[in-house]
Amino acid sequence: MVDGLGAPLTAPLFDRVALIGIGLIGSSLARVAKRKNLARTIVASDASAEVRARVAELGLADEIAGSAARAVEGADLVILCVPVGAVDAVAQEIAPHLAPGAIVSDVGSVKGAVLATLTKHLPKTVAIVPAHPVAGTEESGPAAGFATLFVNRWCILTPPEGADEKPVKRLAEFWTAAGANVEIMTAQHHDLVLSITSHLPHLIAYNIVGTAADLEAVTQSEVIKFSAGGFRDFTRIAASDPTMWRDVFLNNKEAVLETLGRFTEDLTALQRMIRNGDGEGLFKLFTRTRAIRRGIIAEGQETAAPDFGRHRDDKDQ
Amino acid sequence: MVDGLGAPLTAPLFDRVALIGIGLIGSSLARVAKRKNLARTIVASDASAEVRARVAELGLADEIAGSAARAVEGADLVILCVPVGAVDAVAQEIAPHLAPGAIVSDVGSVKGAVLATLTKHLPKTVAIVPAHPVAGTEESGPAAGFATLFVNRWCILTPPEGADEKPVKRLAEFWTAAGANVEIMTAQHHDLVLSITSHLPHLIAYNIVGTAADLEAVTQSEVIKFSAGGFRDFTRIAASDPTMWRDVFLNNKEAVLETLGRFTEDLTALQRMIRNGDGEGLFKLFTRTRAIRRGIIAEGQETAAPDFGRHRDDKDQ
Ligand SMILES: NC(=O)c1ccc[n+]([C@@H]2O[C@H](COP(=O)([O-])OP(=O)(O)OC[C@H]3O[C@@H](n4cnc5c(N)ncnc54)[C@H](OP(=O)(O)O)[C@@H]3O)[C@@H](O)[C@H]2O)c1
Ligand SMILES: NC(=O)c1ccc[n+]([C@@H]2O[C@H](COP(=O)([O-])OP(=O)(O)OC[C@H]3O[C@@H](n4cnc5c(N)ncnc54)[C@H](OP(=O)(O)O)[C@@H]3O)[C@@H](O)[C@H]2O)c1
Repeated sequence: MVDGLGAPLTAPLFDRVALIGIGLIGSSLARVAKRKNLARTIVASDASAEVRARVAELGLADEIAGSAARAVEGADLVILCVPVGAVDAVAQEIAPHLAPGAIVSDVGSVKGAVLATLTKHLPKTVAIVPAHPVAGTEESGPAAGFATLFVNRWCILTPPEGADEKPVKRLAEFWTAAGANVEIMTAQHHDLVLSITSHLPHLIAYNIVGTAADLEAVTQSEVIKFSAGGFRDFTRIAASDPTMWRDVFLNNKEAVLETLGRFTEDLTALQRMIRNGDGEGLFKLFTRTRAIRRGIIAEGQETAAPDFGRHRDDKDQ
Repeated sequence: MVDGLGAPLTAPLFDRVALIGIGLIGSSLARVAKRKNLARTIVASDASAEVRARVAELGLADEIAGSAARAVEGADLVILCVPVGAVDAVAQEIAPHLAPGAIVSDVGSVKGAVLATLTKHLPKTVAIVPAHPVAGTEESGPAAGFATLFVNRWCILTPPEGADEKPVKRLAEFWTAAGANVEIMTAQHHDLVLSITSHLPHLIAYNIVGTAADLEAVTQSEVIKFSAGGFRDFTRIAASDPTMWRDVFLNNKEAVLETLGRFTEDLTALQRMIRNGDGEGLFKLFTRTRAIRRGIIAEGQETAAPDFGRHRDDKDQ
């Protein structure tokens, strides 16, 4: 198939998959699970009655459960798709209702804190395999999801030390069938890697948009009008869900502060170059950063089209 | 016309338009000038013989001059489309060859320094009207340009104090016909506004990509693989032309350092919130920044499509 998802599996990978929290990620998982026949039955659950109604309306699941506890009953795969800050409450709620042998996973953007919470609350009879699909948009809610969200994106699994291999392998198959490439690493390393590739970029974007809003000498209308110079890309990132990102920074404090410290040191050096009119130093840095861009395009994580293909309609004249 | 450029003018606005420097911006201007009949004759010139050959090959101009001095002879509109750092040399070269009454403009991303340089070198007999189209991509060179680059983008004119109204009006007409919205302000205010909407975002993007490249605990391959979390948008910005951006920071030092100072103060406060686990403070900031995004979408400077419309092909399932 042209969209990269391929044909549905002839036999489902899991019997009963419970998705808790049907926002952007949960609804995308529901869509791809249905489309690719990843589960015999998809059970959806969400704290919000409004979301549950929307899920029914959109026909995203085979069953909709009124609570997370009910949703996980008899499920062989449970995936928490709630904000990281809600994982603790959900884990406590579902713990007594989990089927022995079930795989319990999540999609949270932070892994160390989630792994600790799940380990603390869940029974030894289930297999804990936290996961993070590195894919998303700045939208949220069940209507924002789509089946191809994970295609050609990476999904990182962070099983605890000494975990059974089999459930890790089964979850990897699930994500592979959803179109993702799977990588396995420790939760701690995940949190460090993502602190630079995701958390710090979001922090910086939120910060610069905040700075712009507060300048007295430049009006908000000017900021908006002349955003095409580069700023608008930051506003897109800074329009991401506040709850999700608050939880990320509260739960990945250490790695984020470490990476932020490096960033600030480098920024101070760059500031000095500007102050001293060090054109050679600036040129050197600005040239070096191009190599990473080329790597990302070569890896298929981005298109080379400038401006994301906007305005290219009549490129030939 | 669907692309927003509309029909060609029945009579050209200028007799002879000389474009000096045929890169992304110069070649886009050449394309739209031809397409919209903005000039009876378009003369192109570039320091690089290779670029001149490419311009001939692409058929971008009616005449190609071997030097900037030759290009401006008899032109009633001259637009310098060279990097800001090259404006001084070009101004000195063309000064003795300018026709009395000619309008001399540019497209540089910095305006105070350019206005000062042009005022210093050019004869009193010409009208100096610096300009900056707030539009671009991270590509450069004559093949990267396209006729619709300026459509629905702002072009800022920064005439010197007490300038004649007529040449300003004529240049505004030129840019309007090229699809842009025109705004007039002082060069100093321009440099301040753009320091936040363009220069600081680029600085930050270059810096974070540099920081990522230098982390020992995270490999370059990991940075590239997991860039979809937010980082890849920064790499796109940080792939912009090093010469252009070196010149911007060397020539808008004061405003950039001022804006950078504000940014750093705000970042320190944000860092403290994370360290203290101040979830409420984080949530407040992350919510506030969404309003600016909505403003940009309402102004038509961006599309609301998440992820710039990537992956949306099968949104309905
Ligand atoms: N967005 C991304 O780009 C992205 C990418 C990768 C991973 N992630 C991770 O994916 C997870 C979900 O993100 P998302 O973007 O899908 O968020 P979302 O669209 O806001 O969806 C989250 C859903 O979970 C529900 N929920 C909240 N607390 C709950 C609880 N205690 N029990 C049951 N449901 C609850 C929410 O309901 P309410 O609306 O009532 O709060 C909402 O419907 C987060 O952990 C995030 O870190 C996100
Ligand atoms: N790119 C953007 O997004 C953007 C947006 C708005 C405004 N601007 C401004 O537009 C201007 C041009 O940018 P661009 O992106 O079009 O750059 P570009 O694609 O690199 O083109 C610049 C062209 O000028 C030529 N040149 C350099 N020095 C020259 C000289 N002394 N005499 C004649 N030609 C010379 C260059 O030749 P070589 O290749 O031999 O150096 C090159 O062909 C800059 O001032 C920039 O600040 C850029």
